[in-house]
Amino acid sequence: MKGTVGELGEFGLIRELTSRITPTPAVRIGPGDDAAVVTAPDRRVVASTDILLEGRHFRRDWSTAYDVGRKAAAQNLADIAAMGAVPTAILLGLVVPAELPATWPTELMDGLRDECQVAGAAVVGGDVVRGDTITVAITALGDLRNAEPVTRGGAQPGDVVAVTGWLGWSAAGYAVLTRGFRSPRAFVEAHRRPEPPYHAGPAAAGLGATAMTDVSDGLVADLGHIAEASKVRIDLASTKIDIPTQMSDIGTAVGVDPMQWVLNGGEDHAIVATFPPDVKLPARWKVIGEVLHPSALPQVTVDGAPWARAGWDHFGDNGDAESPPRGGSVAPGGGR
Amino acid sequence: MKGTVGELGEFGLIRELTSRITPTPAVRIGPGDDAAVVTAPDRRVVASTDILLEGRHFRRDWSTAYDVGRKAAAQNLADIAAMGAVPTAILLGLVVPAELPATWPTELMDGLRDECQVAGAAVVGGDVVRGDTITVAITALGDLRNAEPVTRGGAQPGDVVAVTGWLGWSAAGYAVLTRGFRSPRAFVEAHRRPEPPYHAGPAAAGLGATAMTDVSDGLVADLGHIAEASKVRIDLASTKIDIPTQMSDIGTAVGVDPMQWVLNGGEDHAIVATFPPDVKLPARWKVIGEVLHPSALPQVTVDGAPWARAGWDHFGDNGDAESPPRGGSVAPGGGR
Repeated sequence: MKGTVGELGEFGLIRELTSRITPTPAVRIGPGDDAAVVTAPDRRVVASTDILLEGRHFRRDWSTAYDVGRKAAAQNLADIAAMGAVPTAILLGLVVPAELPATWPTELMDGLRDECQVAGAAVVGGDVVRGDTITVAITALGDLRNAEPVTRGGAQPGDVVAVTGWLGWSAAGYAVLTRGFRSPRAFVEAHRRPEPPYHAGPAAAGLGATAMTDVSDGLVADLGHIAEASKVRIDLASTKIDIPTQMSDIGTAVGVDPMQWVLNGGEDHAIVATFPPDVKLPARWKVIGEVLHPSALPQVTVDGAPWARAGWDHFGDNGDAESPPRGGSVAPGGGR
Repeated sequence: MKGTVGELGEFGLIRELTSRITPTPAVRIGPGDDAAVVTAPDRRVVASTDILLEGRHFRRDWSTAYDVGRKAAAQNLADIAAMGAVPTAILLGLVVPAELPATWPTELMDGLRDECQVAGAAVVGGDVVRGDTITVAITALGDLRNAEPVTRGGAQPGDVVAVTGWLGWSAAGYAVLTRGFRSPRAFVEAHRRPEPPYHAGPAAAGLGATAMTDVSDGLVADLGHIAEASKVRIDLASTKIDIPTQMSDIGTAVGVDPMQWVLNGGEDHAIVATFPPDVKLPARWKVIGEVLHPSALPQVTVDGAPWARAGWDHFGDNGDAESPPRGGSVAPGGGR
C-alpha cells in the first residue's frame, strides 16, 4: 500500500483496517455498526483501557508499527488476564497525522490482531481521527468463565507471592536501546514486544489466588499496589529471584545492577499473585516472597529491608534512563 | 482545587477523578484494579469507542470541561442505545498537558459522571497520561436485556423511517458560535451538550425496529449508512420534517437554509430507525420517510431527488463553516 493516511482518506483507512481483522466465535457483531456485540457468557464483563502516545510510550525509530500493535494489545490483554479472566475483544481508538504513511496504521492493526490471536481475542471496533500525535487508545474486554475476579485486595498474611512470565527483560532491552545498541536481540525484542503469560491469569484464579496483578510498573511497585489494597506487607527473597546470565552480562556492560531491572522494570507484563501457603503451584510459577502483617517498614521489602527505587509517577520527574516512560499506571480500572 | 495537572501528579489526579465517580449496581469492581468488572446479564456486551481531540472536536473557549465530558459520554452512550441496548458503563482514556489546570480533568469527570447518570451508566475505569493535546478516548458498554441488537443492515423496502430526538440543533448552535455569538442559548447549549434520547434505542428494539443508528454525521449521511448496509434506498419527505421557528430565524439571520442543519448536521445524536409499515409508534417518534428498493438514484433522497451535501470525511477537506469538525464516523464498532 502506498501513500499517506490523508491520501487514503478516512473511509479508505477504515476499510484497510477492518479488512485485517480476524473475528472469533465470541464476536456477534464486529466493526461497521454503531457498536460491537461480544459474548459475555459469565454475565459479567471485565474491561480495561490504556492510552499510548508516540514519543512517550513508543518511538517509531525503535519499534515498528507492528510491534507497537503487539505491545499495545499485550498490555491491555494482560490487565484482563490479571483479573483472572480470559480476554475476548479489544477496541482501538487511533489518532494519526494525515502525513503518516498509510502502512503504519495497517501494520499496527496487524500487530493488534496477532497479539489478540495469541490471547484468544479479536479486534471488534474502533475509531480513527486525524491529529498531530500518534495516539493508540485500547480497551480490552474479557470473560471470567464463572471464576471470581482476583483483585489486588485479597492478599493475606501467610500467603506466598509467586510470579510467572518475564521480569526485567523489557527494561534491560530499553537500557540497551538507549545506549544506541540493537542487541542482544532477545532483550530488545522483549522491550518491543512483551509476551504476557495470558493463560496464567485464569489459571491462578483457578488455583485460588488471593490477589493478582500484571507487572507493568515494576515488580516492587506493582506488589506495592497489592500490599496497599490488601493492607499487608510483602517481603521478597532476593535469593529466589533468578537473574539470567545474559542479563547479568548486560548489567556489567552498561554498569547497572540487573536486580534493578528485575525489581523495577515494567512492561514485561509478568503475572504476580499471592496464594494460600499450602497451594501446589505448577512449575512455571516461582515463589519469590511472602505476605506479612503490615509494619513500620515499607509495604514492599526485599530481604526484610526497604528497596530503594520503587515507583513511577510519570507526571513527576522521577524518570531516568534506566526506566522507560510509561503510561498512567493504576488509573481507575485501567491500571497496566 | 488549585494548581496544574503536573503539580497534582498522576496519582493525585487519579484520586481526584475516581473520587467523583458514582457507581451503579452493575459495577462489580470499579476503578483501582487492573480492570473493571461490570454485569452483563444478557450474556452479550455491546461496546463502542470514540476519540475526541481538543481543537478538532471541542474548543476550550467554547465549551467547559464539564460540557466536553457530557458530550463525550453522550456520543458514546448514544451508540450503545442505537444498537437497542441499555448503557451500563464507560471507560476513559485521557491525555492532558502538565500545565493544564487540574480543575479541567476533574470537571470533565463531573460531566462524564452526570451524563452517565442520565443514561443509567457509570464510569468504571480509565487511564491518564501526559501529552501535548487534550485527548478524550471513551469506550461505552451496554446490555441488550434479551433484545436482539438492531444493526444498520436490516431495513426492508416498505419500512417506514422514523426519528426521535433533536435534529440540526447542534449544527445551528455551531453556526451561531462560529459567527462569534453566544445565543440563542438553546442552540448553543445543544451544541455544547447534546441530549440523546437514550431510552428510545431499547424501546425501538422492542417495537421491532429493523435498522437503527444515532445521528452523528448528519441525518442523510447516517441514513446512508443504513441504506448501504441494508442495500435499500431511503426517501425522506421534507414536508414531514419540522423546522422550529427559532431555527428558521437563525437561518435567516446567518443566511443558511436551516434544512441544511436538519439534514446534514450531526452531533445531536437523535435516534433514527426503520420499522415495519404497520408499526404503532409512540408520539415522540416522527415518521419522516420510507424505505424503497435500490435504484439508480443515490441511496438517500429527499422528496425523490438527490440531496446535495451528504457526508463528511474528516481526513479530506470537505468541511466548511456550517459543519462542525467531527471524529471518524463509521469506524469499526465505534461509529458515532
